[in-house]
Amino acid sequence: MKKTKISSRLLEVPASPIRKLVPFATEAKKKGVKVYHLNIGDPDIKTPGVMVNVLKNWSTNPIAYGQSQGQPKFLESLAWYYNKIGYSFVKTNNIQVTTGGSEAISMALFSVCAPGEEVIAFEPYYANYNSYAAINGVKVVPVLTKGETGFHLPERSKIEKKIGKKTKAILICNPSNPTGTVYTKEEMEMLVLICVKNNLFLISDEVYREFVYDGKKYFSILNYMKKYPDKMVLLDSLSKRYSLCGARLGMIVSLNRDLMDGVLRIAQGRLSSGFVDQAMAEKLTEVKDSYFSAVHKEYQARRDVLYNGLKSIPGVFLEKPEGAFYTIVKLPVKNSEDFCQWLLEKYNYKNETVMVAPAAGFYGTRGMGKNEVRIAYVLNIHDLEKAIEILRHALVEYNRK
Amino acid sequence: MKKTKISSRLLEVPASPIRKLVPFATEAKKKGVKVYHLNIGDPDIKTPGVMVNVLKNWSTNPIAYGQSQGQPKFLESLAWYYNKIGYSFVKTNNIQVTTGGSEAISMALFSVCAPGEEVIAFEPYYANYNSYAAINGVKVVPVLTKGETGFHLPERSKIEKKIGKKTKAILICNPSNPTGTVYTKEEMEMLVLICVKNNLFLISDEVYREFVYDGKKYFSILNYMKKYPDKMVLLDSLSKRYSLCGARLGMIVSLNRDLMDGVLRIAQGRLSSGFVDQAMAEKLTEVKDSYFSAVHKEYQARRDVLYNGLKSIPGVFLEKPEGAFYTIVKLPVKNSEDFCQWLLEKYNYKNETVMVAPAAGFYGTRGMGKNEVRIAYVLNIHDLEKAIEILRHALVEYNRK
Repeated sequence: MKKTKISSRLLEVPASPIRKLVPFATEAKKKGVKVYHLNIGDPDIKTPGVMVNVLKNWSTNPIAYGQSQGQPKFLESLAWYYNKIGYSFVKTNNIQVTTGGSEAISMALFSVCAPGEEVIAFEPYYANYNSYAAINGVKVVPVLTKGETGFHLPERSKIEKKIGKKTKAILICNPSNPTGTVYTKEEMEMLVLICVKNNLFLISDEVYREFVYDGKKYFSILNYMKKYPDKMVLLDSLSKRYSLCGARLGMIVSLNRDLMDGVLRIAQGRLSSGFVDQAMAEKLTEVKDSYFSAVHKEYQARRDVLYNGLKSIPGVFLEKPEGAFYTIVKLPVKNSEDFCQWLLEKYNYKNETVMVAPAAGFYGTRGMGKNEVRIAYVLNIHDLEKAIEILRHALVEYNRK
Repeated sequence: MKKTKISSRLLEVPASPIRKLVPFATEAKKKGVKVYHLNIGDPDIKTPGVMVNVLKNWSTNPIAYGQSQGQPKFLESLAWYYNKIGYSFVKTNNIQVTTGGSEAISMALFSVCAPGEEVIAFEPYYANYNSYAAINGVKVVPVLTKGETGFHLPERSKIEKKIGKKTKAILICNPSNPTGTVYTKEEMEMLVLICVKNNLFLISDEVYREFVYDGKKYFSILNYMKKYPDKMVLLDSLSKRYSLCGARLGMIVSLNRDLMDGVLRIAQGRLSSGFVDQAMAEKLTEVKDSYFSAVHKEYQARRDVLYNGLKSIPGVFLEKPEGAFYTIVKLPVKNSEDFCQWLLEKYNYKNETVMVAPAAGFYGTRGMGKNEVRIAYVLNIHDLEKAIEILRHALVEYNRK
């Protein structure tokens, strides 16, 4: 009997560089080795108590479907948030609640591109853009940015050179996962001008909006939304802002009515996002400013520990990350994927090891990022210092092989 | 300045027939009219206390990402469940947890079809198959089933006539949403034979497995999975079984390793399903059998009330539904969408009205189902009786216009 075959497009969906080594981490743990997880942006910061208390005081039963656009109270909380950060023009009907920022990425790519059409992104970029491009039949056209210039944008002509008939959008992550780059006002205005001139969407993933260090200024796409209502698409998420990764809540914000109507039809197909999660998240209006200032201070301190620690390891190169809680680091290795797997499979230092993400999966160009890893500084300073020491020792041992 | 345009494929995603009239229901409620919701399968049955208690006793913080395949304990609970219902060959590595049965449908269609390829489904079928077909660039090829034969399958040749070079799968829902049909053993074996002969996947959505009435027998695709491991794909969900619609948890079960590996890669792109939801759901092992017997008894009683009530309305036609909690009903109207909207927008009986779903969206063939609606019997008997009386009076008034 002939074997029934899966579609070839399923084979094209890449494994996540952040998660594909998880089985090796699981094996290490089974052997009693402690693994410091710097591979994934899953913060150890507490979810605000006012949100977790929603669970403790739960009385609603049954746990029923919600509205496809998002629960009305949660939508109001989100509009309140955008108003608070200075964008009072954002109303509930400009917001679509998504099941994680992930769904927002997928819906946006589907909405702006026909199959085979293109989106420009600055590599290294968030690895899952590749997953969603594959799922939606979209081609990501990479424009290279470099560690030496802090992964800031290249000159305008280098970007415009990549724009062709099939280009429909520029996709950015600002502050950037995986580079930690925060785009300047000039960079943002350049991108807006390019999009206006070439009739493109500008899709901005601003999940790390609150994570900008050293008093740097951050420029949201929201500043341009009223002027270019058809072109600007904001992707957002509560995962990092409120340490709520497991709640799977994100949003698309846009004034483009055709896009929002279409996105709602997609949302109707999947019925609704989590009922309990939204009930928790609607309490964001009650999270005190002191929560964010403490979190911000903690991450800036972690960033400093990580940057200084890694800089002191021979052969390691990185620029100081400006925002988010990631950095792309050059290591003195030829094949970082092999090194990352070796860390989990073969190495331990005093019965401990580190998991980091090989950077190749964050590039669109094959062969790039082979000597780089992405590090998420989502552990407390004590653990972070230990993880850096393990990396220091591991690199010596690995290169002695 | 030129307006930047959304993709044409976004325009092709249909609005949900179950949800698109929601704004009219909202307006009716604002005017103080009570709306009985028979449009959506969102049961009023309580979620098992053992699950809701997980919320009340919550102590984990932060609410972090889970595993992409599903949380290990939840996967074990699911394997326990399949073992309990007689399929001990289902192990955790044959299960992918999905964010609702919806995601399971989407992943399955993506996985078996290249863009433009085809899946055969028996119309009327679950409306969101059309949504996910549009999203995944898959064509649903409908094979008509009729109310007069309880929506049971036509003869084999009528099905095989629709199989062409592009056909990759047959997709069924058993027990069926929206028809309430439970396929016989003979029907299931015919489908399996067709799939084997034509090298197709058989994708079976068995979300309503526990909802089969009058002592009828139900034949799961799981009975054929060991014999045809590459061809059988089960779609499942906890939403209806545990009245947990808002928890957004479903699964794909298959022994096709290529398919499961690919589906896991898709899952990695969206990181994980809800952490809190899975913590609740893993308690399914502690739900007593008495919960299901009470629920089953309640639904069978509702089915009887609905069937007898609707049968007694002049001009209304339906066969007795055998399972699930839906039925497709012929009404003495020309345009059921107009009637459904009129019920919400213009009609009330003693300040109450009914929301039902126009059936056209459950068909793949344009023009079909225009005088039909889908009714979900998810309200208690008292409310159901009231809703039927409202329909009876409404039909008289509507046809007098």
